[in-house]
Amino acid sequence: MNSFRDILKWGDKREQTLEASMTKMLHTRFGDVASSYPKGDIPLNITKPSALTQDQVLALFDIVGAENVNTEPYARITHSYGKYYTDLLYMRNGVVTNPPDAVVYPRTHTDVVKLIAYCNAHKIPIIPFGGNSSVTRGLEAPLGGISVDLTRHLNKVVYINITNQTVTVQAGMYGPALEKALNEHAEGYTCGHFPQSFEFSTVGGWAVTKGAGQMSTGYGKMEDMVLGLKVVTPVGEIETKDFPRSAQGWDLNHTFLGSEGTLGIVTEVTMKIRKFRPKNTSFASFVFKSFDDAVNTMRITMQSEFGFPHLFRISDPEETDIAFKTKGFDESFGDKVLQTLGYKSGKRCLMFVACEGDAAHARFVIRKIKGIASGNNGLHIGGKPTRKWLEQRYESAYLRDPLMDKGIMTDTLETAVSWANLSGLWKNARAYAEAQPNTLMMVHISHVYENGANLYFTFLSPMQMGNEYDSYILFHKGLVDTLVKSGGSLSHHHGVGRVMAPWMQEVLGKNYLDALKAIKLHFDPNNIMNPGQMLGLD
Amino acid sequence: MNSFRDILKWGDKREQTLEASMTKMLHTRFGDVASSYPKGDIPLNITKPSALTQDQVLALFDIVGAENVNTEPYARITHSYGKYYTDLLYMRNGVVTNPPDAVVYPRTHTDVVKLIAYCNAHKIPIIPFGGNSSVTRGLEAPLGGISVDLTRHLNKVVYINITNQTVTVQAGMYGPALEKALNEHAEGYTCGHFPQSFEFSTVGGWAVTKGAGQMSTGYGKMEDMVLGLKVVTPVGEIETKDFPRSAQGWDLNHTFLGSEGTLGIVTEVTMKIRKFRPKNTSFASFVFKSFDDAVNTMRITMQSEFGFPHLFRISDPEETDIAFKTKGFDESFGDKVLQTLGYKSGKRCLMFVACEGDAAHARFVIRKIKGIASGNNGLHIGGKPTRKWLEQRYESAYLRDPLMDKGIMTDTLETAVSWANLSGLWKNARAYAEAQPNTLMMVHISHVYENGANLYFTFLSPMQMGNEYDSYILFHKGLVDTLVKSGGSLSHHHGVGRVMAPWMQEVLGKNYLDALKAIKLHFDPNNIMNPGQMLGLD
Repeated sequence: MNSFRDILKWGDKREQTLEASMTKMLHTRFGDVASSYPKGDIPLNITKPSALTQDQVLALFDIVGAENVNTEPYARITHSYGKYYTDLLYMRNGVVTNPPDAVVYPRTHTDVVKLIAYCNAHKIPIIPFGGNSSVTRGLEAPLGGISVDLTRHLNKVVYINITNQTVTVQAGMYGPALEKALNEHAEGYTCGHFPQSFEFSTVGGWAVTKGAGQMSTGYGKMEDMVLGLKVVTPVGEIETKDFPRSAQGWDLNHTFLGSEGTLGIVTEVTMKIRKFRPKNTSFASFVFKSFDDAVNTMRITMQSEFGFPHLFRISDPEETDIAFKTKGFDESFGDKVLQTLGYKSGKRCLMFVACEGDAAHARFVIRKIKGIASGNNGLHIGGKPTRKWLEQRYESAYLRDPLMDKGIMTDTLETAVSWANLSGLWKNARAYAEAQPNTLMMVHISHVYENGANLYFTFLSPMQMGNEYDSYILFHKGLVDTLVKSGGSLSHHHGVGRVMAPWMQEVLGKNYLDALKAIKLHFDPNNIMNPGQMLGLD
Repeated sequence: MNSFRDILKWGDKREQTLEASMTKMLHTRFGDVASSYPKGDIPLNITKPSALTQDQVLALFDIVGAENVNTEPYARITHSYGKYYTDLLYMRNGVVTNPPDAVVYPRTHTDVVKLIAYCNAHKIPIIPFGGNSSVTRGLEAPLGGISVDLTRHLNKVVYINITNQTVTVQAGMYGPALEKALNEHAEGYTCGHFPQSFEFSTVGGWAVTKGAGQMSTGYGKMEDMVLGLKVVTPVGEIETKDFPRSAQGWDLNHTFLGSEGTLGIVTEVTMKIRKFRPKNTSFASFVFKSFDDAVNTMRITMQSEFGFPHLFRISDPEETDIAFKTKGFDESFGDKVLQTLGYKSGKRCLMFVACEGDAAHARFVIRKIKGIASGNNGLHIGGKPTRKWLEQRYESAYLRDPLMDKGIMTDTLETAVSWANLSGLWKNARAYAEAQPNTLMMVHISHVYENGANLYFTFLSPMQMGNEYDSYILFHKGLVDTLVKSGGSLSHHHGVGRVMAPWMQEVLGKNYLDALKAIKLHFDPNNIMNPGQMLGLD
């Protein structure tokens, strides 16, 4: 018998406990947080019966086989929610608001074509489902319909083109499976895309949300890596070719990239791959005296034209202090030395750098960055902290469940911003967080460009019990408003979904949003594709 | 009194004569080409009167000022044609087929807004005019209307953002003026975009055609460099922001980039700039024993992850032999040495490489390429040939007029192709050219990526007098068909225009083209923007 807790758990059902240092830090920060929150260990139930008629279910059986249509609560609930904070609150309380009527697992591209044709003719909503890691409420089915999940069958490498150095891969393949297939190829490749959600996200999801990974500063975001797409829309199929660039009208790859399932279903992706040569990687880690020093080091590096590192990341003073505290470094001998040297807690910032690819080039780039850091009050503390960070880089998300069990709200938000606006935006966001009661906000920069960077916010706060939904929404709204007013984008790589949709017109302008809607209605005249999602078209 | 010849001439009215070595080469190749072709030195005349009513002309006066509306033949004819081969044939024969009714020079962004609103209300076609270097028949006005030329007033740098390392520039600014402004800035910048048309093309034209320059392998194409656009469409204005990346739905920059004036008028572009440090540049030049060796060197370089050179160019054996002949190197002592070493004419290929940016990195990249070349039968012949090529890089276009005066057809074509398809495409194109009577075709690769490259074709052939239009169209069609069947794109950076439009459906697919048309009709419901151009919507 499955519980909501089973669905809440991460893919391999791991549970993590809070380390003593983390508990201590929380206690210091929030005082006695003895409260607890419902764990969701209650049997699954779903009050909304599947609205599909028997004829419709039979038609779906006919298209994909009966074994690939699931109307059971477990499948429907699993496909209702992603990993947004309120998704987790709902599941812990056993509430299912917008489930699909069925989950359908197409076996082939042709199945997808038939499914979309059938649903279009019968006006049945389709919610394309990637790996279930959406943090933007991108998967809900307020009008019912079917969740189309490619992970069961459309999850293989189609081919690796050695000459072009590209992989063509079915959209439902998960990150680790793809990376394993590439690593194990005789030539040894890597996909180069390692989002925090890597273990639980798919290539198709990466593409339609314009995902970014921890090595994206070197390898690029998905929109920089995708060459070709195979897409099924209600008005037909489109397959783009793998030209490295072209000038044959505007490029519809850049319409489907970022479309978040509102235009069609991506079934196949052709993307760049790179040689897998982990021995070539060079590492460096730095402490800076201030956030500005660290940001300047990043900006100068990205504008100096000697190549980019792959991992390039700084933690702001709050995040740095918490890292030091939870790693037990705080008040150690090393800490005392740092403080004496002027790297004061509350000011100092950590930077992690790794450069892959050609070994000599990687060493060259790291050497250059050391020089720039040194000119900006940066202290090189060796490669080890970066290596250690990389080893546990997917772990922090696993703290979410034990934190929420203790009644601690935790979520993240991110934005992209030009260098010129970055410092002001960071200060405004900090001021906003500091004005909230009992709120801890950590900030890092993890994706860096010649002309700007992202900022990534992680926040923790004891839940306002009884008002935990609304208080969170209010907090979130205030922060997004602050980012937008400070010149930030709605998202750098999480996407829009239902969470950010309310800001689309303000940020993009009415004419821009109208154009997106018009394009959507061209491809999807009956509005069956993820209706109501980021474009608000119900 | 102006003649057609005056319009034909390049911007500063330069005329060039053929060097003796060139004349000799032509004689060797084509025999006695004693014929001549009309030079166009006849008075301007235009049989199609301006179809604008007096009210319409007065309304235009009202919007931009009477001094910025021109209905005289010189302006109308100048704005009728670009630089496509048949454009030149028509002008030499004093034929003007599709002139605009007037040329209008808006003074401000607001003028453009008013112009488009007025023309939309009165269904007057608008042909956005860049620098007049179109080689795709992108500027014609078969339905009449106004040519909107931004070069007179909207031709300035708006601002340079030092922190972001970007320039915001009005779309009508010519390449040399922009580059001069950037070079002369206290920080010293370069735009990094040097197309063959550099002297006679504008930033707006670069953007809407997705231009590429000679340094694009390092700096990227326009679609890689543009961060923000200000566009006026018949349904309103859109201004995109300068986020380095974002994930807020799909990116409409990539709809306007490549739109070739069919959706609206770009009035302002925010693009990346880089430090101008010419002393840092490293050069290398190579001779290879075969085209395959040279191509392999390029491919390995681009896939080795040590950084890219900025200029990366190879000439195929035919182009290499002609370069040697016209530079008088043929049969020199150096040539004999090369032949003895196995670098045989008819097989050998020249490669030019330059790397800019950080000096140490530039040297590092060049050193790496020398190693790869050496492993692929490449002989380093010093930096000088590349330097010399760069010095005269805009000159070859000036040979066009003296060649045509002698009755020699000359034009170019280009395509993008994946590495896997490149060799086959090159062989097919070569076989096609060799099957044509008396046709010399030179091929080079000048834009290189991890996953493929462009191929650029330059052809010369004695005109078939009396049948010079149709025979050219037939030749051109056969070559494009060959490229498309061999896996090439319709264009890498010239764009589509009326010349490539007939292939759009075959290459992109009907569903793709239908989507472009639907998007066009959203922005331009009355089809006033460059009607009939690449989308064939009259």
